[in-house]
Order: sequence, then C-alpha cells, then structure tokens
Amino acid sequence: MNIAVVGLGALGIAFATFLKISGNTVFGITKEKYLKNFEKNTVRVKGIWGEHTACLDGIYSDPSQIKEKIDLIILTVKSYDTEKALNQIKPIVRKETLILIAQNGYGNYEKAVEIFGKDKILLSRVIFGSKVIDKNSVEITVNADDVRIGDPSKTVPENKVIYVVETIKKSGIPASYAPDVYQILWDKILYNCALNPLGALLECSYGKLADNRHSRQIMESIINEIFKTAQANSIKLRWKDPDEYIKHFYENLIPPTKKHFPSMFYDLKSGKKTEIDALNGAIVKLAQKKGIKAPTNETITLLIKFKESKSV
Amino acid sequence: MNIAVVGLGALGIAFATFLKISGNTVFGITKEKYLKNFEKNTVRVKGIWGEHTACLDGIYSDPSQIKEKIDLIILTVKSYDTEKALNQIKPIVRKETLILIAQNGYGNYEKAVEIFGKDKILLSRVIFGSKVIDKNSVEITVNADDVRIGDPSKTVPENKVIYVVETIKKSGIPASYAPDVYQILWDKILYNCALNPLGALLECSYGKLADNRHSRQIMESIINEIFKTAQANSIKLRWKDPDEYIKHFYENLIPPTKKHFPSMFYDLKSGKKTEIDALNGAIVKLAQKKGIKAPTNETITLLIKFKESKSV
Repeated sequence: MNIAVVGLGALGIAFATFLKISGNTVFGITKEKYLKNFEKNTVRVKGIWGEHTACLDGIYSDPSQIKEKIDLIILTVKSYDTEKALNQIKPIVRKETLILIAQNGYGNYEKAVEIFGKDKILLSRVIFGSKVIDKNSVEITVNADDVRIGDPSKTVPENKVIYVVETIKKSGIPASYAPDVYQILWDKILYNCALNPLGALLECSYGKLADNRHSRQIMESIINEIFKTAQANSIKLRWKDPDEYIKHFYENLIPPTKKHFPSMFYDLKSGKKTEIDALNGAIVKLAQKKGIKAPTNETITLLIKFKESKSV
Repeated sequence: MNIAVVGLGALGIAFATFLKISGNTVFGITKEKYLKNFEKNTVRVKGIWGEHTACLDGIYSDPSQIKEKIDLIILTVKSYDTEKALNQIKPIVRKETLILIAQNGYGNYEKAVEIFGKDKILLSRVIFGSKVIDKNSVEITVNADDVRIGDPSKTVPENKVIYVVETIKKSGIPASYAPDVYQILWDKILYNCALNPLGALLECSYGKLADNRHSRQIMESIINEIFKTAQANSIKLRWKDPDEYIKHFYENLIPPTKKHFPSMFYDLKSGKKTEIDALNGAIVKLAQKKGIKAPTNETITLLIKFKESKSV
C-alpha cells in the first residue's frame, strides 16, 4: 500500500518503520521544526519487537508534496492537533483513500467524519507502549493488546477494512479486526479519564490512586459522570452499568499498571500541552450538549488547564 | 476577667499575651507535648501592635487543673480539634462562663452550641495575621479588620457580650461588637473556601488564582455551590446573590491579598492536617443534609484529603 503516516512521534515512528520494512511505500508527515530530526528519511525502532531501521520514501511538513496516490493515511498526532492535521491532508485524500485514526480520546474520529465523511474513516485503539528515545528512534516497551481496528459506521466495505488490518499485522505490529472498535476505544477513554489527570495533579502512580479512598471516590465520580454522559448522547458502552466497569477497573485494569504514571504527568512536568480536551474536557462538552452536568470531570479539566497555562 | 485561652498557637498566644498585660487573670491550655515550649508560663508578641511579654497565671494540658472560676474561655484550636477541646473544658464551664469561638470555618460554633447550649457561646471573626516565630512567640503581621464579636443566638445578655468585646479591645486587640457576626463569619468562609484549597493544590498565590480563567471558573463554581447550600440550610448570607459576592471578591478582597499564599498551602508543605473539613468539606456535608450536591467543593475537598493522607 501507499501509506502516509501523519505525526512522527512515539506512535508514528513505530507505524512508519514497521510498515516500510514490510514492503509498503511509506511517507512521513511531521512539523517543519522536526524535519531536521530525520536525516536521510531514517526512522528506527527497538524494544520488544526487535531492532529495525527503515528509510521512508519521503518525509515532509506539507502533505501536498507527496505526488503518489495515497491508499491509507494513519493519523497519530496529539488530539489538540487533529483538526489542523485533517485540514492539511486534504490534498492527498482521494476517493479511494482511507484514513485510520490512531489517537487517544474522544473527538478525533468524529472530527475526521465531519470533514471527510464516514465512509473514508477507520478507527483504531492502540495500546502498545512506545516512547521516543532519540529524535528519530522509538522503543516499544510493552504490548497490552492488539491494535484493534474497525469501521464504527459500517460504511467502508469490510474487505477493505480487513486489508488494512492485515497490512498492519503483516508489518509486525499485532493487530486484529474489531467491528466494535468504537466501544473498545471508549473503554480506553474511561480508563484514561479516571487515571490520567488525577495522576498528573496528585503526582502519583495508578496504584496509589486506587489505594486511597479519596482518589477512589473522585475516580468513581468521573466514571459515573461518563456513563451518564454517554447514555445521554446515545453512546453505547460495553458495560451494564458504572459499577460493573468500576469492578473491572480495580480488579483487572489497575493491578498490571499499578506502577505506571500517566503521560499527562510527564507532559505537565515538561511544560507540554496535555490531551485533557480529548478526555475529561470532551466529556464536559458532550454533557453540555445534552444539557446535563459532569462537574467532577469539569473541575479536574480546569485544574489541568490551569497547570498547563502555568507551565506552557 | 478570669480567662482561659484554649490552644496556644498563633492566635492563642496573641490573645493570651494581650489579655494578660491588660490586667486579666489568664490561663493557657495547650497539648501536653507543647508544655515545654512555655518556660515560666511566658508568652511573647511582636509586630504591628508592639513588643510584649507576659507571664500567664498557669499553662496546663488538662483544663481541670485550673482551680479559679473561669468567666471566659477563648477557643483558638484548629477546627479538627474543636470537639476534643470542647469536651476537655467541661470541668471549667460554670453557669456563668462564656465561651468565645475564635476559629476558622463552619461547625465550631455549632458544635459548641450542641454541647453547652446556645446561651453560653459567643462567636467571633478574627482576621488579623499572626504567625508563630518561636515556640512561645508570635508576630502580628497585618490587621485586615477588627475582631468582630457577637452572639448569633441573641440569648446571651447584650451587656455581657459587650463586656467581652470591651475586655478584648482594652487589651490592645482591635475589636468591635457585631450583632451580625454569623454572616460576617460566613463571608470569611466564602473567601477561604474559594481560595485556600485551590492555592494549596495549585501552589500559587491568590492573585494568580484570580488572574487565570480556569481557576476563576472553579472559584465561581465553589461560591455558587455555597450560596445554594446556605440557602437550602436557611443560612442567610450578606449578599443578594452569588454574582454580587463574586464582584466584591474580585474587586475588593483579592487585590490587597494578591501575593498571599493560603495557610493550607503551608500546612500541606509541612505535612500538617488542614482545616478542609471546616471549609469546603463542611459545605459538602451541609449540602448532603438537604439532599443537594456541591460537587466542585466535594472534588476539591477529596483532592486536599488525598494530599493530606500522603503528607501526614
């Protein structure tokens, strides 16, 4: 396939490297200021899936410089850059091009559908750990589960979706087809909304948050508000009710990640923007849209935004 | 008067010193572990009201050691010690004894009324700045307003209230009679609930909180919830509505204290308990009592309690 990976950060470099070494034509799109990090279009991966070096077919800051017909665009930028990135790729989106959303949080898929129409957009839930270790190199640290890929709207022909899944899987990144990818992504949203901002605010690990009755009460309130908000917006979650999810959260999700600190913690520490607007901030907006309130999510969002405005 | 000052911290040492040098018989009550700080029963004050040293008539950890008949007990302990202190002073509370509450937050006056009956309890709003500079010495740093003293229940004969006011005023501490002391204290509760926990959580001054739109939104939500909660509990505030108070808050209260960091900030830094339960935590309980919610106050309270449990 002819593939453009938009965003060459921890995730983008991983996708680009594996897809290139498995025989695809792969272009990278990154911000102008980062172009100098990729001498001779080289990207590297090390870690649990081995060491690999790839020479991409071109790395640009402006997608319109790509002259080849692109079959697949993989969007890996931070959520706060989604709208800008989607507008930038317009010149390379043809009738047949599919766009795969490989990002965190709520609103990225929805924004892409709004701009390009639902029959061009695939959604994924990515949950392997990748971190940038040098300007053009990443390390794959952990794989919690396959990359799950699907079409929430069921308007893309299923064989085309499966072809994308197979291409990624063959490249060396564990991936599988998930007709219910939208609900699977919401599971990650629930998990991230409960843990990320609190871990960042209170500067502690997921385990500490689950061990303290005060932070437990806040997390449970966040989760309860998300269930109410999802229901008001006719978003179907995979759980009967908040209590069923909360039990799963404490019993199955926390223990293997109990020493983990959220990326939001590191973002704030290093003066970067966070993805709060695609997490708890998105919940607040979804609630407002239906005239209901999500006050715990709102307070937590505002606290993170205060910290961002102090550090950025 | 024969006076017992309960709690020999920043406020207690100030009251005890001034009341003693102006000719009253003054006893101090402090925790056993602090008795060694007061050699020869000496207490000292310096700062904006001059330098003074006084020898109290006795300093004890157990009030029942006081044999004199006590006319006035001034309660200055931290709110989380109120109940214990009230129970301790039972042996020295006679029919004629008045108890003056000189503490922060909601619930101290109410607890005293519950234990001793409303006709023995006076309430004050103390707003001068005093800090401990050595084990038995305090510095008076600023005086925002008179100590306002009154009887919310109007069951104590007015001449007795005024006699207490005059005694304190003559001692050198600016004080005045305030029939509406309950509302005046609620003004301080509003101010403290909006600023103290946020300044402690976000580690910044009152001015920074007022300058940032995210922290402003949180403070306004806290204030709005307090107005709703007060109304539900038939507590009459001095303001037509939250907006009137919020205007006053930004225009008149913040500017002179914009460089100030809350005591709660220093409490958390030094691993001490905070008075959150008498501030935002008290609002949450008052709301629950009437079946309403104060979710912003609740989230903020839980965050402070998490920090306390980590630091204490």
